[in-house]
This record gives sequence, structure tokens and C-alpha cells, in this order.
Amino acid sequence: MHQVFNFSAGPAMLPEAVLEKAQAELRNWNNQGTSVMEVSHRGKPFMEIAAKAEQDLRELMNIPNNYKVLFAHGGARAQFAAIPLNLLGLKTTADYIDGGYWAHSAVEEAQKYCKVNVIDINHVHPDGMRGVKPMREWLLTDEAAYVHYCPNETIDGIAIHEQPDFSGKIVVADYSSSILSREIDVSRYDVIYAGAQKNIGPAGLTIIIIKEDLLDRANSVTPSILNYKILAENDSMFNTPPTFAWYLSGLVFEWLKENGGIKAMEARNEAKQALLYKAIDSNDFYINRICANNRSWMNIPFQLADSKLDELFLKEAEASGLQALKGHRALGGMRASIYNAMGLEGVQALCDFMDVFAKKHG
Amino acid sequence: MHQVFNFSAGPAMLPEAVLEKAQAELRNWNNQGTSVMEVSHRGKPFMEIAAKAEQDLRELMNIPNNYKVLFAHGGARAQFAAIPLNLLGLKTTADYIDGGYWAHSAVEEAQKYCKVNVIDINHVHPDGMRGVKPMREWLLTDEAAYVHYCPNETIDGIAIHEQPDFSGKIVVADYSSSILSREIDVSRYDVIYAGAQKNIGPAGLTIIIIKEDLLDRANSVTPSILNYKILAENDSMFNTPPTFAWYLSGLVFEWLKENGGIKAMEARNEAKQALLYKAIDSNDFYINRICANNRSWMNIPFQLADSKLDELFLKEAEASGLQALKGHRALGGMRASIYNAMGLEGVQALCDFMDVFAKKHG
Repeated sequence: MHQVFNFSAGPAMLPEAVLEKAQAELRNWNNQGTSVMEVSHRGKPFMEIAAKAEQDLRELMNIPNNYKVLFAHGGARAQFAAIPLNLLGLKTTADYIDGGYWAHSAVEEAQKYCKVNVIDINHVHPDGMRGVKPMREWLLTDEAAYVHYCPNETIDGIAIHEQPDFSGKIVVADYSSSILSREIDVSRYDVIYAGAQKNIGPAGLTIIIIKEDLLDRANSVTPSILNYKILAENDSMFNTPPTFAWYLSGLVFEWLKENGGIKAMEARNEAKQALLYKAIDSNDFYINRICANNRSWMNIPFQLADSKLDELFLKEAEASGLQALKGHRALGGMRASIYNAMGLEGVQALCDFMDVFAKKHG
Repeated sequence: MHQVFNFSAGPAMLPEAVLEKAQAELRNWNNQGTSVMEVSHRGKPFMEIAAKAEQDLRELMNIPNNYKVLFAHGGARAQFAAIPLNLLGLKTTADYIDGGYWAHSAVEEAQKYCKVNVIDINHVHPDGMRGVKPMREWLLTDEAAYVHYCPNETIDGIAIHEQPDFSGKIVVADYSSSILSREIDVSRYDVIYAGAQKNIGPAGLTIIIIKEDLLDRANSVTPSILNYKILAENDSMFNTPPTFAWYLSGLVFEWLKENGGIKAMEARNEAKQALLYKAIDSNDFYINRICANNRSWMNIPFQLADSKLDELFLKEAEASGLQALKGHRALGGMRASIYNAMGLEGVQALCDFMDVFAKKHG
């Protein structure tokens, strides 16, 4: 049982059971008398857990055999450069769907390497609710090497729940904040990447799932550590990988398998978000202006109708063990990030607190 | 007291006291009820330890104020690309000193970005001992944007103990395996970089110490996460940094300060290497063919005169708690990596074992 509930957007909460195991074996891993941090990535014990982590992820996400799974250094920001460097090939333009802060950041980095066709999908409904246009209205171009989008915007709290179905297009998705949160059909994507520090493990690791036939087109100026072909040919050990982050991610994958896999997570995540949006919508005290179709399941920003109460809300929440609820500076207000590691009881505790706070100050 | 001694070349042994502290607070850091891995890098508690880690490193190495200290993702391999991308400016050639495996790997990556003037400093003495040419014989060129070298070669066991004194040259050194092992004069360098996983902390973090006036010349195709100016302007938090590695490195810096700083480490490292080379040289059973001037203090490869005994040596060493002594596949034989975290007692245990083994099988 958690004494506190941590709603940080990332680095974020990890499963209690994972941290317990990591702590117990931190100084004596695999009965070797050393930490997993202290052993060679090329030794048999580490190679075994590294391979098992990949295999578990393949099972969890049902990743087809013609996809490579790469464990790379860095976060998604590194991939903002790696994607155009690896995928443009002989083409000079790419389609970028702009639906929020992170999608837009990917645009800015890609502009170093190609002509970016920015497709603005932001949409405000007549009732003032914010959302994004459905996929059928995305104006993709014929000459683009690929289309890039971000299915979940951590800052805006906007999600694209549709699965892509663009025949003949190379589809790249930044799944940093929603990977493993619900079932997806990997075969509809060509590249999926995700920084670990939200729904996988600690910061400093990025997982890339890529169709093998895309490994042949890297630009010659691609730094080797960002070159997917080099990473794939060396089983992500061209250089020393972030071993502790890889190990911990493996523990998270085991935990997911032991807890029913993605199907069970999806059911739990659906219940969590329903509970929290209901707590927001059931009164005039709390506000979330994202339309129903595009509400994020992972990152739920909300405002108090009276923003003068923001500071008090955060202070009292903190005192009640509800941490890291302060909204991103771009939006203000509050934000609750409720990744896989956050249980229903944490969301319930937040909803209970919100109810009491609204009654007291409303 | 260690039950085992871990001679891994990297990821390598960490100080016992550091791992004890990390383990104790892994699930309740800073009395927050969460792990340091789970908190935002932009929150005050993490920002404070991040700043303290930098300050402690500055004190330990006596880093002048006109140098920035960057905490970057990845390992030294990432810097093999970042160095030319950030430092070439309008120039098109760079001098690379080639004195071993890693220096040569840096050459290969740099060749993607410029004409590399490779300066081979390998040297075999008349008695067959291997070494490298002294700095006064390095043939640097006028048109080079910078000179790059690696002061300690982990695989070859070769070190360049001289400090650079090239007036008017921009000097870049890959200190991955010898940073913090002895006192150096930082002001003689323009860029020092080091992957953490040998003498600093866990894999996945690289520290870059760079003169401020070099931050203005990055190539426009430099990925943002490798752009020193962007890292410097954002206090190494342009993207989410590898927070756990940064935290652990801070604990290592505290441990160094509590144990007499670099001066004390240098004395201890000098004693350790003297002991081990003596154990190798005092008989015909063990062989190290690096000349006295260029013997590494950190990575000491040695062969058995009878290589048929290699397997037995490793097996019996392992049974005696002496781990990870197998040499790199390029050289075979044995290698003992004895970074700061390895105490004199570990080296003594290895020497005692070597003595017994030689008497038994010699």
C-alpha cells in the first residue's frame, strides 16, 4: 500500500512491486554479490535479462517478427532527430501532424533535416471544447517520406485514440506517454518509439519498434548511436547501453505480464480515467476543456474555476499524500498523470480529495 | 567489507557506501515517500541534488569558472559524433591521435563529418615493449579545428600520463576511463568528456566539461540532444536527463570528497597499480608488455605465459570472489580494471591469488 500517490508526468511513478524487487537486489543481483549496475552488458547474466526484456515486450505488445525492438540511450527528444536522419532516405519532405506541444517539438527538430509539411489538426468545437481532427481529415502529401504523429500529448491532455490506417504511408508514432496503456495493433505502424520515463521505467532509455525493411536508409551524417541499422545489428549493444534502465524496464514488463498484460491494464486505465473525468465534470468547480473523443487517459489537466485557489489546492493535496499535481507552466492549473503504475485507489483518493475540497471552498 | 571483488572494465564496480545509501533510500528518497527515479527533474528537490553534483565535481576537479559542466545522455560513443559536430565550425579537418582501440573508434566516427588527420602514436620499443610516442613527437597540423586524444585505453591498457601543452590548439580528451583517478589541470584542456560507467556512476550518462567560448560553432545538423550550446543554456535539462544516473554520480562525488578528494584517490591508485604490476613482473608466469611510461593505472591487461591455463585461472579466480577478470576478446588473457571504487584490499586479494596460482601451476 502506497503512503503517497505520485501524479508526476515523468519521470513518473513506478510499480511498487518493481521498486521492492530492485531495492532488495540492488547490492546483490543474481546472487553475484554485485549490483546489476556493476556488471558488463556483454556478460551472460545481463545478456539474458536484456533478451528476456525484449521477449516480454514482444509478447505484451504482440510485435510481429518483421519488427526490430531497439533499446537506445536518451529520451524521445533524441528520436526527434533520429527519425528524419534514419527515414528520409532520398526524399526531402515529411508530413508532421501537429496536435500539441510534443508533436510540435518534433516538427522543430525535423526542420533541421527536411522540408516539414506541418498538418495542424487542432480543432475547437462550437461549444468551446478543444480537440483534434479525425484521421480521415489529415491532409497527407504524396511526396512525404513518412507521417509522424504523437498519440498522446502529456501537456495538452489530448489523445488520438484512433488507430492509423493509411495505406502505403510510413507511419511513425511517438508513444512516449501512452505505450503499454492499451492494446494497439503494431502492424499498423512502421515505427513506434517511446521514452521510458512515463510508462516503462526510469529516464535515459528509449524503446524503438521498427519494421526491418526501414533499416537501410540512414543519412550518412547520422551519429552511430542514433543509427537504427547499427543498433539493430548490434542488438542495441553497439555501445554500452543504459543497463540499469534496461533491467528496470524488464522488471516492469514482468510486472505487466503478472498482472494480466495490456488487456488488463487497458481495463484498469479506462476505469481510472472515467473516475477522474467524472469527478471533474460533475460540478462547476473543476474544468477540463478537452472534447470527449480526445481526452487523454494518461494525462488529465484540469483547472479550478477560481484559480486563486490553485495554491491552496496543491498545498492541501500534498498534505494528503497526493503529489506532483501542479499543471505544466504552459497551461497552469493542475495535471494528474495516471500511467499504468498508478492504481485505481490512487485515482479514487484524488477524486475523494477533490470532492472534499470543492465542498469546502465551492 | 566486500565478499567479492569486481574487476569489470565497465559498467564497473561502484563504491560500497554509495550503493548502500542508494539502496536504503531507493523507495523513500528525501523523505518524500517516492523513489528519486519517480520525481520530476524540474522539481526543487531534484534540481538541488543536480546542482550539488555539478558543484562537487567542480570542486573535486578544480574546474575554472569559464567552463561549463554538462550532464548528457548516452556514453562516450555519442560524443565521438558530438565533438566534430560541435567543434569543427568552419574548418574541415581535425587531428586525431590514434593510440589504441577507443581513440581509433573516435576516428571512425569523426570521418563522417570531416577530413581526419590520423596521427598514429603507437610505438614498439627495441625490447618489444609497446607504448606510445611522447606528446612532443605528435605531428599536429595547422589547419585542424582541434586535436582529440584518449588518455587511457581500457582495452590496450595504455595510458598517456603527460598533460597536454599545445599552445593555440583546441585540445579534446576522452577521459571515460580515467577521469577523477588522479589530479589533472583542467585549464590545459578545452573539452574533457567521460562516459560515467567506469569511474563515475552507472551507464547512460556522459559528463562534458567544455570551455564556454566553444559553444558557438555547432553544425546545423547537430541533433539538439548533442548540441553543447543547447545543453548549456538549459542546464542539461533541455530534455529529461537520466535522473537516476545523475543522482548516483552525485553520491559518488560526495564519497570522493569524504575520502580525501582526487589527491587521496591518486595516492591510492598509484599504490594499487604498483602492487599489481609488481605481481605481474616479479615472475615469468604473468606477462604485461606495455612499457613503464605508458602503463595504465586503471586497466591492467596481463597474459599467462601458458595460455592453456587461462580458463583455469578465471575459474579459480571466480571461485575466490575475484570477478570479471577475462580479457577483452581483442587481446585475450586477463584484464583487471581497478577504478576508484576498487580498494587496495581488492588488488591485494588478486595479487595473493596470482601468487598462489603461479606457485601451484608454474
